[in-house]
Amino acid sequence: MAHPNLCLIKYSVTSLSYSGKVSLVPLLDGNIADGTEYANEKIWNILRSGAAGDCSYLWTQTRREDAQICYAMTYQFYKNNKEPIANPIRIEKEKQVGFSVGTDVKPGDTVTIIKYISIVSSLHYERQDLIEEAVSQVREAKTIGWNALLQDHRQAWLDIWDEADVIIEGDPEAQQGIRYNIFQLYQTYRGDDPRLNIGPKGFTGEKYGGNTYWNTELCCVPFFLLSTPREIVKNLLIYRYNQLPKAIENAKKLGFSNGAALFPQVTNNGEECHSEWEITFEEIHRNNIIVYAIGQHATMTGSLEYVAKYGLEVMIAVSRFWSQRVSFSRPKQKYVILGVTGPNEYENNVDNNWYTNYSCTQCLKITLGYLEIIAKENPDEYARVRRITSFNQAEETERWKDIIARMYLPEDTEQGIFIQNDGYMDKELQSTGAIPEEERPINQHWSWDRILRSCYIKQSDVLLGLYLYYFDFDTDTTRRNFDFYEPMTVHESSLSPHIHSILAARIGEVEKAYELFMHTTRLDLDDYNNETDQGLHITSMPGSWLAIVRGFAGLQIHGGILSFSPVLPKKWSGYTFKVNYSGNTLHIRVAGKEIIFSLTAGNKLNIGVYQNVYELKQGSSLTVKMTE
Amino acid sequence: MAHPNLCLIKYSVTSLSYSGKVSLVPLLDGNIADGTEYANEKIWNILRSGAAGDCSYLWTQTRREDAQICYAMTYQFYKNNKEPIANPIRIEKEKQVGFSVGTDVKPGDTVTIIKYISIVSSLHYERQDLIEEAVSQVREAKTIGWNALLQDHRQAWLDIWDEADVIIEGDPEAQQGIRYNIFQLYQTYRGDDPRLNIGPKGFTGEKYGGNTYWNTELCCVPFFLLSTPREIVKNLLIYRYNQLPKAIENAKKLGFSNGAALFPQVTNNGEECHSEWEITFEEIHRNNIIVYAIGQHATMTGSLEYVAKYGLEVMIAVSRFWSQRVSFSRPKQKYVILGVTGPNEYENNVDNNWYTNYSCTQCLKITLGYLEIIAKENPDEYARVRRITSFNQAEETERWKDIIARMYLPEDTEQGIFIQNDGYMDKELQSTGAIPEEERPINQHWSWDRILRSCYIKQSDVLLGLYLYYFDFDTDTTRRNFDFYEPMTVHESSLSPHIHSILAARIGEVEKAYELFMHTTRLDLDDYNNETDQGLHITSMPGSWLAIVRGFAGLQIHGGILSFSPVLPKKWSGYTFKVNYSGNTLHIRVAGKEIIFSLTAGNKLNIGVYQNVYELKQGSSLTVKMTE
Repeated sequence: MAHPNLCLIKYSVTSLSYSGKVSLVPLLDGNIADGTEYANEKIWNILRSGAAGDCSYLWTQTRREDAQICYAMTYQFYKNNKEPIANPIRIEKEKQVGFSVGTDVKPGDTVTIIKYISIVSSLHYERQDLIEEAVSQVREAKTIGWNALLQDHRQAWLDIWDEADVIIEGDPEAQQGIRYNIFQLYQTYRGDDPRLNIGPKGFTGEKYGGNTYWNTELCCVPFFLLSTPREIVKNLLIYRYNQLPKAIENAKKLGFSNGAALFPQVTNNGEECHSEWEITFEEIHRNNIIVYAIGQHATMTGSLEYVAKYGLEVMIAVSRFWSQRVSFSRPKQKYVILGVTGPNEYENNVDNNWYTNYSCTQCLKITLGYLEIIAKENPDEYARVRRITSFNQAEETERWKDIIARMYLPEDTEQGIFIQNDGYMDKELQSTGAIPEEERPINQHWSWDRILRSCYIKQSDVLLGLYLYYFDFDTDTTRRNFDFYEPMTVHESSLSPHIHSILAARIGEVEKAYELFMHTTRLDLDDYNNETDQGLHITSMPGSWLAIVRGFAGLQIHGGILSFSPVLPKKWSGYTFKVNYSGNTLHIRVAGKEIIFSLTAGNKLNIGVYQNVYELKQGSSLTVKMTE
Repeated sequence: MAHPNLCLIKYSVTSLSYSGKVSLVPLLDGNIADGTEYANEKIWNILRSGAAGDCSYLWTQTRREDAQICYAMTYQFYKNNKEPIANPIRIEKEKQVGFSVGTDVKPGDTVTIIKYISIVSSLHYERQDLIEEAVSQVREAKTIGWNALLQDHRQAWLDIWDEADVIIEGDPEAQQGIRYNIFQLYQTYRGDDPRLNIGPKGFTGEKYGGNTYWNTELCCVPFFLLSTPREIVKNLLIYRYNQLPKAIENAKKLGFSNGAALFPQVTNNGEECHSEWEITFEEIHRNNIIVYAIGQHATMTGSLEYVAKYGLEVMIAVSRFWSQRVSFSRPKQKYVILGVTGPNEYENNVDNNWYTNYSCTQCLKITLGYLEIIAKENPDEYARVRRITSFNQAEETERWKDIIARMYLPEDTEQGIFIQNDGYMDKELQSTGAIPEEERPINQHWSWDRILRSCYIKQSDVLLGLYLYYFDFDTDTTRRNFDFYEPMTVHESSLSPHIHSILAARIGEVEKAYELFMHTTRLDLDDYNNETDQGLHITSMPGSWLAIVRGFAGLQIHGGILSFSPVLPKKWSGYTFKVNYSGNTLHIRVAGKEIIFSLTAGNKLNIGVYQNVYELKQGSSLTVKMTE
């Protein structure tokens, strides 16, 4: 973690009763064979391989995108902690380079190899320098040595845990789960390069090809925003900003104009690269979470700088997309959004998906709001953005306001619920209990035809809207919708259960929230869906952290004030975490019947706890009784 | 046409000023390279090739389905109509076998080659006999010789033209079109083998892989039923009947039970073999046209034999499918059919497609109707079918009747039209005139997202229902729906224009009918869609015949009586055709201001003309004045 280009492995063999020669063979092996996604596809070329003294290297190139990566390797060889004379044999094949070292052992002897590997990429170095860089870095690593490098690594992790650890008392499985998730997340994304994003499987599997999905904004952004004071999220946002020209081009190809942008559903360079699966290309709601994330960044950091410099352009482009994508229904006398797929991929090509329609109006509202704020707070930047986007303020904002005012939002007023999409209430509505256990998950047992016309929901849809836009909905509305939709949700997306967990906690169904939290937090540890051979659900892992912080602890922002309404699952005696808000770091411990807040960074902060607001100063702490 | 295993080619070269050697090289060439669909796929193996005397052969095997075909070839070589001593050189490569023959010519000499080819298939002969069969058939052909074989071929065509010709007076382009289509149809399908069906491209292109689609029942069945007295259609129906077990298996895989059948959308052996394109697998309406075709066969032939022996089983299985596929909507208090694609493939995964819902009730009605008739007319067959299908008459028919009575059929009562599917009226409705010319066809210019949410219709959908089930709808209903839907139909399916042409004629819009007829009849001749390189639209070709007979001549059956209400397009001075009905052959000539009917086979026939019914006896004729 301290030296991101290095990888070290230490390996020891002790003879119990054997006498004779032991050979160890430190290699760089270019013959990877993962066997899952690209089993029959040659994904890279070996450009050159060789050895220089005690150092070997492998210079590779990915075939699809011409990324070049060079690996160098050296080693140290010990017998009983001393370096013997080993007479290494050099191994040089086209795709395998390294050494074979050996020595004679007798019972009780231990031979040890430390393998030093450097990995350098054309993302950071000139292509012609890659071999030299790799070799020089691995040589330096050997000079520094195992102990010092391990110490650096440990310290880097200690710093992260100090920031991000969550302690759960009384529930080792939950504790293991949340730490496992935090560990995977910080190991996957360092947040120091806006050219990089987070693939759904991180580096743990080839599925989804390392591409970026809306998972990043939906799940990773809120986690990194709150869990670390470092500016990790800004780079995730700039990643999208840099792809804005391609998102505009993408929308243009689909028939849109005037700088309207449709960000891709699946991408690594800004171009849409989803497969032909219709469900995916119709998930245009993805545009909204990108705008939402920009707004969240401003709220959580308390800074308008990103919005003014980058965010506003994205907001305008996305709002322009909606302005053209909605149509006006004569019979309904409302704006409608036809032919979409919502987050629930078990409906396809539906009209008036509630989440899509609602998040569209929210997107327009966020855009209008920040336009007004930046015009006032930073008129120069506002003028610049207006100029480069040829923004016709009067006309465009009027249209957006009209869409907000007259958007059709399907609702069942009798039951007091929002309707997922047109036609949903015509389905035979029944709970997931009606599905025989041996037919779960349904996506592995049912025909697609049957899934599409069933009432079953892959992942939260109306409920996702209630989670994201909580400030618009009271608890009773949340409860009615939760009671209606949760029983029909099969949670066959890893993005689903934490949303439901958070809402369950909000409406006081703490044990239901706990059950869904455990589903999220141990999804990969317990291989819940029998699929971890494909890799871990990296981008869903923040869900378990969010379920604790936004669910059990009830973190919300109301009128700019960071607020909590903690609950405690029966099994837990307490839980502790830190959050960062507007330059402050707040330490929260929920323990038994009370909650203790303390400010570890920042001068003072007003916080809401249940119905009251308290002022908290650095160094001081605040204890509030839990509400029953 | 008289010897279906034979192919003959005659080729002559006359020297104008050349003196010297001329060689002709009759070959069988196994190196086909069509270059369109399967350009990079090796679709067959050569099992053996060789020569026996003056005969060469090529024994091949298709890789996917192990069909074996053997070709044999021999030739006759003439110089100025005499056989010279040619000393042929034998050519034997792995994939090419044949001969090279030559002779010396001087100016004025003509050399001629006649190539005799036989093609025999494992469909008709034992595999081990294929070479022998091919060689013996081609030798026999040579013995019979060019002139006699050509005469047989001519006579076979004359017989077909005598049956099937349509004469159009005053419009050579239309005349050429209809004859071109009739020629292609009879050349493609002989109707003597129930293992064969008709691929959308016939044998003219590789697109659609030679598989069977609903085109057969929709378009080819009514053509062959009416245009020839021979029992061609029975074999097309038995083709489906033989696939019933697989259709039941197919439905079972999708979660259906109790012998419910879903016939495949695309097949050649009964198994569903469509690609993953969702639109296709949700086109479950295809089940209904199969039942409709069985009913049509009984009506047109006047015989219940097929229904009793085969048809009823299919009807019960399909009705069972619908019985399980509908669901009951609580808000609507009606049966609904959710998640389908109608014939209009520019809507996808819609609810309550009017055509699907309506044809479902019709399918149930047809089934109930024939169950009653067969129970009465043929109680033994009825008992047999009931036994082998484990048909629970009381319970199942009650359910079907309930579905018929309470099916939801979307309708706009104010405008007096049926609604294509739920949500359609929310679209921005505009005519195809709003599409810039350079953006047609839209499926080559618009994104799929845009097509799906547009109002534009690929092929008739509500109108198709009005065409098939004309007996349920009055002319005003047809007119209102035609006026509403035709302006939004882009006819980007070759199955579309003839349906509209027929309806236009019915509502008196004769010139519109003519325009749509010309679109259908010259689609391939004029390469309307710039795609004949992919092959001809064989299974849509009957559309032009149907547009004349069911459109301009207005053929319908009312109360069992064959009825006509002819109209005449301005450009035509007359048209003449024959139709076969219940064992009778009727010759109809529409000429100027009158229509002349005569019975060329059968004893007597009641026919309806406009509002009256006439009795027609063999040999006599009837002249009726055209209605203005």
